[in-house]
Amino acid sequence: MSYFRPEIEQMAGYVPGEQPQGGKFIKLNTNENPYPASAAVGRAITASIERGLAKYPDPLATGFRRRAGEVLGVGPDWILCGNGSDDILTIVTRALVGAGECLRLPYPSYILYRTLAQLQGARSEEIRFQANWSLADDFTQVSRDTKLVFLPNPNSPSGTVLPPERILEIAERLPCPLLVDEAYSDFADANCLSLIAKSDKIMVSRTLSKSYALAGLRFGFLVAQPHLIEQFTKVKDSYNVDALSIAGATAAIDDQAWLRENVAKVRKTRDRLTAGMRALGFASVDSEANFVWNPHPEIPLKPLYEHLKAAQILVRYMDYPGWGDGLRISVGTDEQIDACLAVLKSKM
Amino acid sequence: MSYFRPEIEQMAGYVPGEQPQGGKFIKLNTNENPYPASAAVGRAITASIERGLAKYPDPLATGFRRRAGEVLGVGPDWILCGNGSDDILTIVTRALVGAGECLRLPYPSYILYRTLAQLQGARSEEIRFQANWSLADDFTQVSRDTKLVFLPNPNSPSGTVLPPERILEIAERLPCPLLVDEAYSDFADANCLSLIAKSDKIMVSRTLSKSYALAGLRFGFLVAQPHLIEQFTKVKDSYNVDALSIAGATAAIDDQAWLRENVAKVRKTRDRLTAGMRALGFASVDSEANFVWNPHPEIPLKPLYEHLKAAQILVRYMDYPGWGDGLRISVGTDEQIDACLAVLKSKM
Repeated sequence: MSYFRPEIEQMAGYVPGEQPQGGKFIKLNTNENPYPASAAVGRAITASIERGLAKYPDPLATGFRRRAGEVLGVGPDWILCGNGSDDILTIVTRALVGAGECLRLPYPSYILYRTLAQLQGARSEEIRFQANWSLADDFTQVSRDTKLVFLPNPNSPSGTVLPPERILEIAERLPCPLLVDEAYSDFADANCLSLIAKSDKIMVSRTLSKSYALAGLRFGFLVAQPHLIEQFTKVKDSYNVDALSIAGATAAIDDQAWLRENVAKVRKTRDRLTAGMRALGFASVDSEANFVWNPHPEIPLKPLYEHLKAAQILVRYMDYPGWGDGLRISVGTDEQIDACLAVLKSKM
Repeated sequence: MSYFRPEIEQMAGYVPGEQPQGGKFIKLNTNENPYPASAAVGRAITASIERGLAKYPDPLATGFRRRAGEVLGVGPDWILCGNGSDDILTIVTRALVGAGECLRLPYPSYILYRTLAQLQGARSEEIRFQANWSLADDFTQVSRDTKLVFLPNPNSPSGTVLPPERILEIAERLPCPLLVDEAYSDFADANCLSLIAKSDKIMVSRTLSKSYALAGLRFGFLVAQPHLIEQFTKVKDSYNVDALSIAGATAAIDDQAWLRENVAKVRKTRDRLTAGMRALGFASVDSEANFVWNPHPEIPLKPLYEHLKAAQILVRYMDYPGWGDGLRISVGTDEQIDACLAVLKSKM
């Protein structure tokens, strides 16, 4: 006899990308930033250690919300902080989607969304992207019990975006909130922040893991209208972000000059990666994220992934049933990308 | 029309103890440790900053689990780490208790347990402690759909304990797992760790917030049999503890000499607080935690709480319907406790 909910027993569980804790791997598999975070982050955390860790942190991370609000042009009450944006996605799903209800998402996209539905005992209904990674109107034809729609923009694994005006159109046709997962939007030309005031159905989640080079810190946030933020706050753990993360995240978002410079470097290397992969025959997709999706029209890719791993280079091999496989390669430094391209070239 | 699950709309939400972010308050309201954490913690976090924060942390916090396992006498696969023990309580509830099912707890105890049931769309069934803070056998007479029992030991607000042999007896009569919330057990004479190998129904949660003086860090963990840990791992966020917290927590649990010395100081001041409150006429309960529960047979306590707050001393005023009210005062330094006692004396 099992003590567990049947949904939990039956789940395979979400498997995050490999995180080797030793060795000399070039990690191009989990979309981490290849550069160190702004030096202001370390200074702010050190100051926080000196103030002491015996007291609970501010449950609402008010200091971060004030500064982020100024940077993003919204009030602090439009922001909810989370222990990484995964925490935000969990909070939103738990608040909106009950057992037996439905969560809509595009396919292929972030595998975690499906796991979040399973954990709630809810269904997930996946609508395929078109071949050019746009979404047809069937995406907005939801069931009566659909309570939440996830839309990563830029999407993973493709790195493609839907333009904000298309997203507003989608939201207006939906009966329920649309969470635009903007984990990668700092690397893109546009984002959906300005849509939030236009419709309380549009919410945007962000993370500091990618564009601020702080995956180790676990800090993400949601931007939504205040009456929604108020309800989500009931669902989060009381002290869901720790004192060090709040200090570091506030310093990070305060340093927009660092962000601009970092994004420019990543975008430049992204072009180099895309061109290099295409020269090897991959059907690489134009990316607005910090990774590139590389299917290949002819050759099997799993062995290439293995070759790269044997050469201490980790990329992500992904195979989406009914869609196809590819290598998702994070944008590293120019040197890391050149090393990756060289190994691929030697094996093809 | 609301987008939210009806359970969420109807919830008041858990209100954590006041966390003033400025001012010169003596904080005796949320059971924080009055002393700074082991100096090894700050050093470990600083080293972690120097290693960089751009990479994701170890999703399973293996370094911590190894060291904690050695200290506690269990294997690393008996341990699950969480973003504070609230994260652990959330994970366990989500894994075991489905919508419409039932969660059992004693009353009065930690208010959050009830919130966790509400979030799941589950019921909570509360059984009153006896007048002497023991639990009668009706505690084990659960409904057929009871899937989890919470038992804080030491309990809050009382600071009282049930002996481990009684807890084993309770677990053996239950059809479902019993989570013994040992947030305060380092301040007590006994704990339930050794029971876990005897019964897979007994699980123990711990936190570094209280006895390790690390409330600002958010780090807690569960100890349970490995086949249970495996299922709970599916429910947690992939990277639920950050790199800095893992480093700090590992250093903290490694410094058992610091823990012993700290606990001795807190227990000594606890005696001083209890004696001082009794001298003022409070019916203070003998505590095995780092706080003391102080009902008073005659006078109203809310005004005393207000007087203390006006004097920049925060304690917790708690009023449990059907049970009665009291002041829950955390054990501070001797000086803080003397200041608190002096204000109380001047107003009584």
